[in-house]
Amino acid sequence: MKRIGVFTSGGDAPGMNACIRAVVRAAVYKGIEVYGIRRGYNGMIRGEIFKMESSSVSNIVQRGGTILKSARSKEFMTREGRQKAFEQLQNFGIEGLVAIGGNGSFTGAKLFFDEFGIPTVGAPGTIDNDLFGTDYTIGYDTAVNTALDAIDKIRDTADSHERVFFVEVMGRDSGYIAIPCAIGGGAEIVMIPETETTIPSIIEALRTGWNRSKTSSIVIIAEGEVEGGAMKVAAKVQEALPDMDARVTIIGHVQRGGAPTAFDRLLASRLGIACVEGLLDGHKSVMAGLINSKLVYTPFEETFTKRKLINPNFTKMVEVLSV
Amino acid sequence: MKRIGVFTSGGDAPGMNACIRAVVRAAVYKGIEVYGIRRGYNGMIRGEIFKMESSSVSNIVQRGGTILKSARSKEFMTREGRQKAFEQLQNFGIEGLVAIGGNGSFTGAKLFFDEFGIPTVGAPGTIDNDLFGTDYTIGYDTAVNTALDAIDKIRDTADSHERVFFVEVMGRDSGYIAIPCAIGGGAEIVMIPETETTIPSIIEALRTGWNRSKTSSIVIIAEGEVEGGAMKVAAKVQEALPDMDARVTIIGHVQRGGAPTAFDRLLASRLGIACVEGLLDGHKSVMAGLINSKLVYTPFEETFTKRKLINPNFTKMVEVLSV
Amino acid sequence: MKRIGVFTSGGDAPGMNACIRAVVRAAVYKGIEVYGIRRGYNGMIRGEIFKMESSSVSNIVQRGGTILKSARSKEFMTREGRQKAFEQLQNFGIEGLVAIGGNGSFTGAKLFFDEFGIPTVGAPGTIDNDLFGTDYTIGYDTAVNTALDAIDKIRDTADSHERVFFVEVMGRDSGYIAIPCAIGGGAEIVMIPETETTIPSIIEALRTGWNRSKTSSIVIIAEGEVEGGAMKVAAKVQEALPDMDARVTIIGHVQRGGAPTAFDRLLASRLGIACVEGLLDGHKSVMAGLINSKLVYTPFEETFTKRKLINPNFTKMVEVLSV
Amino acid sequence: MKRIGVFTSGGDAPGMNACIRAVVRAAVYKGIEVYGIRRGYNGMIRGEIFKMESSSVSNIVQRGGTILKSARSKEFMTREGRQKAFEQLQNFGIEGLVAIGGNGSFTGAKLFFDEFGIPTVGAPGTIDNDLFGTDYTIGYDTAVNTALDAIDKIRDTADSHERVFFVEVMGRDSGYIAIPCAIGGGAEIVMIPETETTIPSIIEALRTGWNRSKTSSIVIIAEGEVEGGAMKVAAKVQEALPDMDARVTIIGHVQRGGAPTAFDRLLASRLGIACVEGLLDGHKSVMAGLINSKLVYTPFEETFTKRKLINPNFTKMVEVLSV
Repeated sequence: MKRIGVFTSGGDAPGMNACIRAVVRAAVYKGIEVYGIRRGYNGMIRGEIFKMESSSVSNIVQRGGTILKSARSKEFMTREGRQKAFEQLQNFGIEGLVAIGGNGSFTGAKLFFDEFGIPTVGAPGTIDNDLFGTDYTIGYDTAVNTALDAIDKIRDTADSHERVFFVEVMGRDSGYIAIPCAIGGGAEIVMIPETETTIPSIIEALRTGWNRSKTSSIVIIAEGEVEGGAMKVAAKVQEALPDMDARVTIIGHVQRGGAPTAFDRLLASRLGIACVEGLLDGHKSVMAGLINSKLVYTPFEETFTKRKLINPNFTKMVEVLSV
Repeated sequence: MKRIGVFTSGGDAPGMNACIRAVVRAAVYKGIEVYGIRRGYNGMIRGEIFKMESSSVSNIVQRGGTILKSARSKEFMTREGRQKAFEQLQNFGIEGLVAIGGNGSFTGAKLFFDEFGIPTVGAPGTIDNDLFGTDYTIGYDTAVNTALDAIDKIRDTADSHERVFFVEVMGRDSGYIAIPCAIGGGAEIVMIPETETTIPSIIEALRTGWNRSKTSSIVIIAEGEVEGGAMKVAAKVQEALPDMDARVTIIGHVQRGGAPTAFDRLLASRLGIACVEGLLDGHKSVMAGLINSKLVYTPFEETFTKRKLINPNFTKMVEVLSV
Repeated sequence: MKRIGVFTSGGDAPGMNACIRAVVRAAVYKGIEVYGIRRGYNGMIRGEIFKMESSSVSNIVQRGGTILKSARSKEFMTREGRQKAFEQLQNFGIEGLVAIGGNGSFTGAKLFFDEFGIPTVGAPGTIDNDLFGTDYTIGYDTAVNTALDAIDKIRDTADSHERVFFVEVMGRDSGYIAIPCAIGGGAEIVMIPETETTIPSIIEALRTGWNRSKTSSIVIIAEGEVEGGAMKVAAKVQEALPDMDARVTIIGHVQRGGAPTAFDRLLASRLGIACVEGLLDGHKSVMAGLINSKLVYTPFEETFTKRKLINPNFTKMVEVLSV
Repeated sequence: MKRIGVFTSGGDAPGMNACIRAVVRAAVYKGIEVYGIRRGYNGMIRGEIFKMESSSVSNIVQRGGTILKSARSKEFMTREGRQKAFEQLQNFGIEGLVAIGGNGSFTGAKLFFDEFGIPTVGAPGTIDNDLFGTDYTIGYDTAVNTALDAIDKIRDTADSHERVFFVEVMGRDSGYIAIPCAIGGGAEIVMIPETETTIPSIIEALRTGWNRSKTSSIVIIAEGEVEGGAMKVAAKVQEALPDMDARVTIIGHVQRGGAPTAFDRLLASRLGIACVEGLLDGHKSVMAGLINSKLVYTPFEETFTKRKLINPNFTKMVEVLSV
């Protein structure tokens, strides 16, 4: 393999730039050429492809977002779209790809390999940490710290006014972001899709806290919670506790931005290098991940069909710590 | 005057603790006694009053929220409530008060002085910067920096995905928070209550940007904007621009928390000392403020009946800078 | 066991408060009493011991430092000192201890158990990550992020002026802090005690960079580096490269403070609970740690006699990424 | 005037990029052309000059450092150097300059105008705030907040260990950075070049604190202090107080980097626009500044020959607040 391409796809995540940097520098180090592809599969189809050098990725390791930009591509989901993308890659002589993204990106990459034989090695770039095959995804640690920093600020005002705050964090269908926010944010209650937390149990917990003369409380709600987001949960609880002074905060898109943490830069760097090495070693349609700090390549389809379970101890910990 | 009380009231603001510290230390320095009153006027009515020493305010200068807690009091708005508060102060021998808060707090303090003769000197503690008689209120600079930090993170993702973000910031009926967020956050458009910005003008501005190949945009909306908050504005614009990839973020209560900036600590410290000096100098029913860096005492009623105007150059600057 | 004590000892580390909170809450949850001991072994000897409740640890999870204060105790290193400490614990009816600290603390605890039979379970609280028996110590992740944040700022100015910065980070005899700072900070060179990096090799690397038209460079130096700290290394390099525009920064004690990261709060919380459970399960003279995310109790003497090795891939990564 | 140039010179400061952005956008808005000059006067001499568009300054408002890079130029201090620079500007058709920098930059600009008639309007870009003609310089507010953030972290560890920290901050010959750090950082003592603070008076103050059972202390020392920097002062005090557990931290170059605060972005934006307007209005050899929030143009030579005095109340405040 003499020439590879790199792109970011799906929702952006802090650390994507650190990963791009590692891919480019590892390629240069190994003596192969590397091309950047802008706007994910859309840019691949349209030929938004350009040569990258070591200096193309100077001074980006600390930046949020992605210098290659990202997009979700409807066209690549069609056979015609993929055909066009293949022709573009052929024009540029690109023989292998590194995809930094989540399950949508990997689904496309697998199809693309099966049809056109272009191998892709993927790096897990998503704040949601919901991919099987790696203990942590790139961007997750930063998103948790961003959310936690917001919760620290909210607690200042919750505490000053003796209020109950219902705080919604991201995480799609999982509680991976919600759990450390609850434990680290001193929350009394956490609601995540993986476990059932009924509205009556929340009401009970708040009442118990007040009896112990807790004056302010924080409830963390994962966006994928089945009882609804923070607005709905707060409204239901308010109905049963009309005297409660409640406020709702949806932390939102700030969780996707910002300078990556040390953890995410290290993870992104290590996996970016592993993607290039994986391609050179003949891997096809796999994601590079770290399990117990060891490098593992997992077939793309397993990364989103198998479910990574959240440690059940963690929900127990929230209960113990809010005693 | 031998003994004074200090309390925080209304919405909490970063820097209130720095101000409490300055009040306590200045009192100790001047050789008078100082009592803390918890939960604003409510605590005054209930006698939640305790002696403070220099060491009571150690290591709080950097903390958000207020160690004295805050509350809005309905009871103090009644003659009976104020009567009870007066009796409590008499029991404790408190001859003057320092109130850290906003217009609600000052309205109460003026009534209280007129009826019972207890003088109050106020420090402007509110993130909204909407008090006449001071160029800046305590907490405003911190709130702006917190909002701006969030906007920096949002721009990472706006830029990566080529989206339009409608971001709502606090500020009650004024655009004081929105304006520096727009200028410092690289926003294309700002909507504030003080000036008229129509939905068609926003649509026009976004279209113009796209024609100049701007791919992402940020619109900052003050919560008091007459066209509605970020949700409403985004919905109206989306209707006219169905292809726009829009997202809404309401930054919310995080703007009230967090460690105060250097500016707010300095302002809070200076005004806290000025409150004690003002009481000792015989001031009654006035707010201490800084105008052009000079200390000024303004009668309470002027602080909320007179309107502090936003510099019209600032909205012009947003236009120039988003060229 | 009905009553336990908790203390912090040795150098303070961010997350110690989160750990104290977890110890106290876990004890309350398990129905046993918990006493705080101030100033480490010194306070134990002097009887600075007080009962803690769940509310004693409210709102501390996010705070740097330690509410129990820390100290190094010469007196506890004597038999007489330990005798006094034992008598104090007997007076208070304390039957077991949780020690949050590093190897000095654990050495003392082991001696104390051998002589007086008071069991201690330890939590690894040190920014240096140099304890065997846990993948990460409490405070390490925060210290790395603090150092990295400083390096990000330094790179702004290095880049603007085309300078070489020699930056010294903490870590005692190990490169655990230096390595992620180098990888995540975009450094060209890293010097750690575990590997040999000669001055001529640095001079060579800087020259090579200039030939590739790199205009600014960052060299990260662990404080335990055998060639000396940043001042010495910079002076030696300057001699050979008189035209180099070099600056030295020693990041220093800021690395010990600040709000702990999510990672450290989670780790501290989990290990704090594990210490209480370990004591109740009959463990004596062991440290609770996480290895591959699994809870492990390691005898105190192994924690500081066995050496935890740094992953050799990491130094290789610095080389690849600075290509 | 149809075409202007912009450059940064001297020590870099956060907000320089925000200022460059404002200069470029204001020029575009006014319909004139703008060229960037790299590496200050050195780049002017060598012709490192390139056309800038509105898009050249996208997404830089929040970045530390300067995209135009900075340098101190010995060559421009010679008549020959300035002659070459003049010829380069003539080649590019540049009729006026915006210089973002400090007194060195302005000295050069004045000479250049006197000899070759090219007018320059300057923006005060330096963290030191030591220029006459503006209440605040660009970068000052950010530097103070960066230093204060470090001091907050240091206090965590000072407080945990009951130590005395001697902390050195930047500021050249002035105490402008030291003063808000002391007031906002809860320091007991501040040493600045503008006032005399003897070593015996520090020893006295520390002893007094200990008698009041203050267990930790922070002493802030401006780098220009006549008694020497933090190392020297600490050594002198240690000699008289051998039992004092003292530590020294020199905050250093981090104070020059990082994302600018809201205050600095607003100031930089306003002054950047004012520089372009000033050139178009026929100003020559003046600096744009804000005094009491009003725009003022001050002749270059006054900016560094006249001395801006520090408010004497501020040193008094440190004394009151550390009671």
